[in-house]
Amino acid sequence: MAVFQRFQRLPFVSRCLKPQTCNVTAHKTVTERIQQRRAHDAAPTRRPFSRVTPDDLSFFSHLLPGRTITDPDVLESCNVDWLKTVKGSSEVLLRPKTTEEVSQVLRNLAVSPQGGNTGLVGGSVPVFDEIILSTALMNRVLTFDSISGILTCQAGCVLESLSQYVEERDFVMPLDLGAKGSCHIGGNVSTNAGGLRLLRYGSLRGTVLGLEVVLADGRVLDCLAKLRKDNTGYDVKQLFIGSEGTLGVITGVSILCPRKPKSVNVAFLGCSSFQNLLETFQMCRGMLGEILSAFEFLDASCMSLVEKHLKLANPITESPFYIVIETAGSSAAHDEEKLHNFLDKVMASSLVVDGAVATEEAKIKALWSIRERITEALRHDGYTYKYDISLPLEKIYDLVTDMRAHLGNRAKNVVGYGHVGDGNLHLNITSPREDAALLAAIEPYVYEWTWKRQGSISAEHGLGLKKRNYIYYSKSQEAVRLMRDFKTMLDPKGILNPYKTLPDHVR
Amino acid sequence: MAVFQRFQRLPFVSRCLKPQTCNVTAHKTVTERIQQRRAHDAAPTRRPFSRVTPDDLSFFSHLLPGRTITDPDVLESCNVDWLKTVKGSSEVLLRPKTTEEVSQVLRNLAVSPQGGNTGLVGGSVPVFDEIILSTALMNRVLTFDSISGILTCQAGCVLESLSQYVEERDFVMPLDLGAKGSCHIGGNVSTNAGGLRLLRYGSLRGTVLGLEVVLADGRVLDCLAKLRKDNTGYDVKQLFIGSEGTLGVITGVSILCPRKPKSVNVAFLGCSSFQNLLETFQMCRGMLGEILSAFEFLDASCMSLVEKHLKLANPITESPFYIVIETAGSSAAHDEEKLHNFLDKVMASSLVVDGAVATEEAKIKALWSIRERITEALRHDGYTYKYDISLPLEKIYDLVTDMRAHLGNRAKNVVGYGHVGDGNLHLNITSPREDAALLAAIEPYVYEWTWKRQGSISAEHGLGLKKRNYIYYSKSQEAVRLMRDFKTMLDPKGILNPYKTLPDHVR
Repeated sequence: MAVFQRFQRLPFVSRCLKPQTCNVTAHKTVTERIQQRRAHDAAPTRRPFSRVTPDDLSFFSHLLPGRTITDPDVLESCNVDWLKTVKGSSEVLLRPKTTEEVSQVLRNLAVSPQGGNTGLVGGSVPVFDEIILSTALMNRVLTFDSISGILTCQAGCVLESLSQYVEERDFVMPLDLGAKGSCHIGGNVSTNAGGLRLLRYGSLRGTVLGLEVVLADGRVLDCLAKLRKDNTGYDVKQLFIGSEGTLGVITGVSILCPRKPKSVNVAFLGCSSFQNLLETFQMCRGMLGEILSAFEFLDASCMSLVEKHLKLANPITESPFYIVIETAGSSAAHDEEKLHNFLDKVMASSLVVDGAVATEEAKIKALWSIRERITEALRHDGYTYKYDISLPLEKIYDLVTDMRAHLGNRAKNVVGYGHVGDGNLHLNITSPREDAALLAAIEPYVYEWTWKRQGSISAEHGLGLKKRNYIYYSKSQEAVRLMRDFKTMLDPKGILNPYKTLPDHVR
Repeated sequence: MAVFQRFQRLPFVSRCLKPQTCNVTAHKTVTERIQQRRAHDAAPTRRPFSRVTPDDLSFFSHLLPGRTITDPDVLESCNVDWLKTVKGSSEVLLRPKTTEEVSQVLRNLAVSPQGGNTGLVGGSVPVFDEIILSTALMNRVLTFDSISGILTCQAGCVLESLSQYVEERDFVMPLDLGAKGSCHIGGNVSTNAGGLRLLRYGSLRGTVLGLEVVLADGRVLDCLAKLRKDNTGYDVKQLFIGSEGTLGVITGVSILCPRKPKSVNVAFLGCSSFQNLLETFQMCRGMLGEILSAFEFLDASCMSLVEKHLKLANPITESPFYIVIETAGSSAAHDEEKLHNFLDKVMASSLVVDGAVATEEAKIKALWSIRERITEALRHDGYTYKYDISLPLEKIYDLVTDMRAHLGNRAKNVVGYGHVGDGNLHLNITSPREDAALLAAIEPYVYEWTWKRQGSISAEHGLGLKKRNYIYYSKSQEAVRLMRDFKTMLDPKGILNPYKTLPDHVR
């Protein structure tokens, strides 16, 4: 498979350059920059955690009979991330079914909690020999309240299964993402996943109502409330949302599901410039208002890649930029009227040069697949350097343009797509193979560029292993120190997903 | 003024009975229960904080010339809460204008941060001689992005002023509450205020994008991001939302404002039973869907009180229950059609017995005022015992019915109103005067009742001083211990809003 070009221990870098000193590097040659990176960057050193002993294995086998896995073939796939860029060497995979079992596991040994293993920053696989603690068998729906739409379930439920479950009951999950067929809700919460519906239903910080978390010492924190409002004390569950399993292992989730819309429409539009795309977005928000459920974009390079590698057809005239707009509402007639009024206006004003609209499910899926399968097309295109940037909306495409100019012909492709409504750009750069010189040209340039514009170097993917040392490009020293203090308080031995999220050296 | 019946030091109780042992009290006489309460309850003891010295005053006067207030008349109003039920004895009021000034103030002396002082649980006034740290002069808008709708401002901006500011720019604040004319955005965030728009725009946990916070030792935590998405490390700002000033002083807020709707309608409806009201809500969510922006209710007793004390007219036939429905959308024609279809259906099915609809602003305000002025009417009715309960939706009115039966003729009025869409009941019990026997009949009954149904004993008001010791009715021991650990970590000297939020004794 073309995606499997490389497969090594720790390909990422862990550079810890002060943003304030970034400009110095601009004057160095590529070779100097690579050397500097090598000098600065060091893969983490294995911390002195106990190794798994025969006694430990005996304990696990007794606790989890048939669910304590040491078979190297099974372990192989759990040791490697989805992108095949990070590989650990764990020799034990545990598959608890209950919270109590998770609690029994957490004591002294380092663990790497794993859901669907679909993360993009190396956060869900072990770095060394940490035990892999899989939530795969914790996949039971616990309760669903068909009046309020509040679902409680175990952490290992697959997002798509939950979607089907609640859709049969006339609700939808408040999040949707490309990896829905594999990702677990516990992983979604641990990484504060964003995705395609954030524009409409907001972030998990608002829709997650409760969590059950096993702390590093095995204590079970029961905050699995099924209430929309609760202001009794600090909202401690928030700290576990987006902390990538480094502060506790999420075992249960309570989440608020919106009603299933009665009518869904998708429009696929072409724009001749990014400025026109932004103006289309502004007009769209005004005219579609409350029924707008997604506003996504891709550039012409993305379209070329899905056409070339996946043989998908461009449904409209070739354009520099494409938009996918989804509406979801309670009245088909009203929604279609709003959408047509909007389309008439943007076509008449030449903001949009061509478009296609779908109302049937199969056609909707076909239009969506162009946007959703870009990641897959990129994997076919070569080794991919992936960046997930949050920026003030009006600047989001400048990064692609500037990066293209900056890299010249050193990259195979520099493409941009993402969630316009959330100010979230996915910048991807492909190369025939891994290329240290190319990487040195991309980083820290991309981080400095983002930092100068007060953006976030990880809008929705998290930091995991790969980006942990870049945190200072988006967070202040005080904030990172506070994070370190939380980590020390909640996991004094550092056994929960070590080497992830926090930088190697806190300033 | 009738509302000023009582005015004493610490009228609240701080009973710390284990929920597990609640039933024991049911067999006691009223006298025994009062005695038990007195034995169990103790107002907090002043902790050994330094007293403000002449040197401190000199430092403050130098730092905040003309804004270091020791005038007893001015201090009087800041020492008392809005309900006039809690009174402190602070001798210094500080009015910083900048974050740096707040930072200079926070060192060793205990402080009580104060915004608009509109809280209902005694959280915003000093208990003893804590310095009152007012945000009143920190009232500058810092930035507003008219593309994204992201507002950043100082913590002391009055909510209504911010509403006016963003409405002039075609946006609305994502929260609205009765106290908007006085409350500060910093106080709203510190108390995780809910209010009337939560149903539509979600909680502040999703809409607050960034905070600036001064920590107990004067360090400034700058998390004032202006990004919709940012997954770089733990979201530390969340801990300060709803922590009532006990972990840090919020000095700046970044918040996402939704677009101003083009069309707003309000319907005022009457139902013959709470069951019919719930069925109306279900139908409403299905038929109004994305344009539903509020679904509030009041019972006939509330209506009687606003008619009697405020001389407001009931716009429809007398009914056991009343509903206020608000729609907000982008098309007046569509919204009205949806609303009329819905009204036709609920009238035809006899779920609703009578109704009035308003589309003009003055009439909308008149209908809303019936719901919004209930608190004011209650103050005229006598001494009011206020409870703010979150429950599974189908049970929310049972508490009012059960409380009426439980109290018999001991109470003057037992009324219920609140946010149906959020499962949030405001239970209020009036009495001609403060009545220890009545209180002993209400508490812990109300908390036990809520606890047995897995509700929250404070949906949106917080715990403050009055309810801090009732936290175990809604939170587990592990959760409260974790809160205590956060407090110890962030405020080791305990100087930030002491005696609030956390119970006197952590189990």
